[in-house]
Amino acid sequence: MSTTENIIRVGILGYGNLGRGAELSIKQNADMTLVGIFTRRDPASVKPETNAPVYDMDKLLTMQNDIDVLILCGGSATDLPKQGPDLAQYFNIVDSFDTHAAIPDYYAKVNEAAKKSNKVALISVGWDPGMFSLNRLYAGCILPQGKDYTFWGKGVSQGHSDAIRRIEGVADGKQYTIPVEEALQAVRDGKDPVLSTREKHTRECFVVAKDGADTKKIEAEIINMPNYFADYNTTVHFISQDELNKNHSAIAHGGFVMRTGKTGVNQETNHLIEYSLKLGSNPEFTASVLVAYARANQRLRKHGATGAFTVFDIPPAYLSPLSGEELRKNLL
Amino acid sequence: MSTTENIIRVGILGYGNLGRGAELSIKQNADMTLVGIFTRRDPASVKPETNAPVYDMDKLLTMQNDIDVLILCGGSATDLPKQGPDLAQYFNIVDSFDTHAAIPDYYAKVNEAAKKSNKVALISVGWDPGMFSLNRLYAGCILPQGKDYTFWGKGVSQGHSDAIRRIEGVADGKQYTIPVEEALQAVRDGKDPVLSTREKHTRECFVVAKDGADTKKIEAEIINMPNYFADYNTTVHFISQDELNKNHSAIAHGGFVMRTGKTGVNQETNHLIEYSLKLGSNPEFTASVLVAYARANQRLRKHGATGAFTVFDIPPAYLSPLSGEELRKNLL
Repeated sequence: MSTTENIIRVGILGYGNLGRGAELSIKQNADMTLVGIFTRRDPASVKPETNAPVYDMDKLLTMQNDIDVLILCGGSATDLPKQGPDLAQYFNIVDSFDTHAAIPDYYAKVNEAAKKSNKVALISVGWDPGMFSLNRLYAGCILPQGKDYTFWGKGVSQGHSDAIRRIEGVADGKQYTIPVEEALQAVRDGKDPVLSTREKHTRECFVVAKDGADTKKIEAEIINMPNYFADYNTTVHFISQDELNKNHSAIAHGGFVMRTGKTGVNQETNHLIEYSLKLGSNPEFTASVLVAYARANQRLRKHGATGAFTVFDIPPAYLSPLSGEELRKNLL
Repeated sequence: MSTTENIIRVGILGYGNLGRGAELSIKQNADMTLVGIFTRRDPASVKPETNAPVYDMDKLLTMQNDIDVLILCGGSATDLPKQGPDLAQYFNIVDSFDTHAAIPDYYAKVNEAAKKSNKVALISVGWDPGMFSLNRLYAGCILPQGKDYTFWGKGVSQGHSDAIRRIEGVADGKQYTIPVEEALQAVRDGKDPVLSTREKHTRECFVVAKDGADTKKIEAEIINMPNYFADYNTTVHFISQDELNKNHSAIAHGGFVMRTGKTGVNQETNHLIEYSLKLGSNPEFTASVLVAYARANQRLRKHGATGAFTVFDIPPAYLSPLSGEELRKNLL
């Protein structure tokens, strides 16, 4: 592998699972170096996996000249809506903002900040939004007469797990989203099924009840919870905290993006495009996507771009440390 | 669907299966119009599927001002090596040049011609090279510690079918390339197998022998043919011309691009990215990719680009008739 530009100096903001994943991913990329991890916690309490320095978040703005691109590893609920527009004033950033409905508003705010400061902000990077979005876009452009299907899982949904844990009498809980095999097969068989919410995914819950709690009542509350569970076939298992810790701490995830499309004189020819991910760790994979797009951020910057961008705007070659010549020779 | 630019005026050069596919695909795209089909044959002998005008190829250069982008639908063996560099002097072009080893040389020639004339040439567009290349690139950038696997089929290989037909005593023949199911499964199971040529694909031949030909000898010649068959497990079936015409005229194809990659402190986390195509018609699908990239060609042109490009260089959004705002809202 030959690199076509200088070493990219990366900062990480936030050191949860995603920040840790970004730290490990940077180690896999020879053209990058990790300048530092920035945290709201006491830096002394953070033990990174590498010898990267850990700084108090207050130090961040003093290090503008040391950081080429800052990866925001906070959450979409409360961290990013504030950090994205704030920090795009000072840094080239990459983030994984994933509240789909709020993306247009978030984009506008980050774009304004980045334009003002002549920075590049790459938002909503990861696998959905991210790689799944790209596959929906490519497939839809190639086969304009067709149908899209996105399935998620098997994997833990944080939102649904949180919803379970808010129920009275629940000590802890995890929820798996599982695609329905028959639905996947019907799409693959070219049946163009119209699938209800219930027909696409099932939900499986592992719940730790508090001492003396009414498990029948908890189960009923879960199964009938509007938006989260009422529209799905949901199974509830009551288990001990030990079992939950031992068997359900995995952070695996994945899913499928499919498009069935038709071509021909009378749309008589069927095609299927299928993209799938089986991820041993959702945060480690998402972080790896963020790190690849940190490279793209720098390429964009070198081409004079400013403002906010998404995966849709990035030439694929910008993700690679290889030159155009090497890519054409070895990967095309 | 709202369009963000004017109608794109497309020309098609060559009217075999690929040209016919392009004609049909243009019909599916409301922001395009087919200016004409250009052919080496007598135009009166060509019967298009739509009411598109058919012109003698000699007329092409007189219509430079009528054509925004020209899709070259000839073959990679003899047509494109000449047409690409020639026509990039006069037109923005898109082609499906697919001789992998010759791409760097072809790129250089087309790039020089297109740079001189301030045109945009998009080369090697289709599914391999094309969508498969893109998936190799994306997956490799996200998971730099990993292994790539590409499988083709089940589908007819023109090159191998031609090789069979050159054997003495053979009247006609078709060859299917078939991925080995156990190999696919070993990759999906995360076994990181090292697969020999023989372990990845099998080859199945349907052969029509001439009257009185020695079928044992033909079979031996096929099975032992260097490069084409000797390294594979090959099955040969002798059938009648009627059977071949009836059961083996399909132009279905497809394949799989997979990457298994590792992340984590000790590369202990496994991930699988899989992209697959099941195509009812290889030429109709390839043509649909060409047509989507004809749109991208025009976007590049409007951004002032000149020279040769591949799918690696194209921002995905350029393939879509939708605006950035619409894409972020509906597809991200």
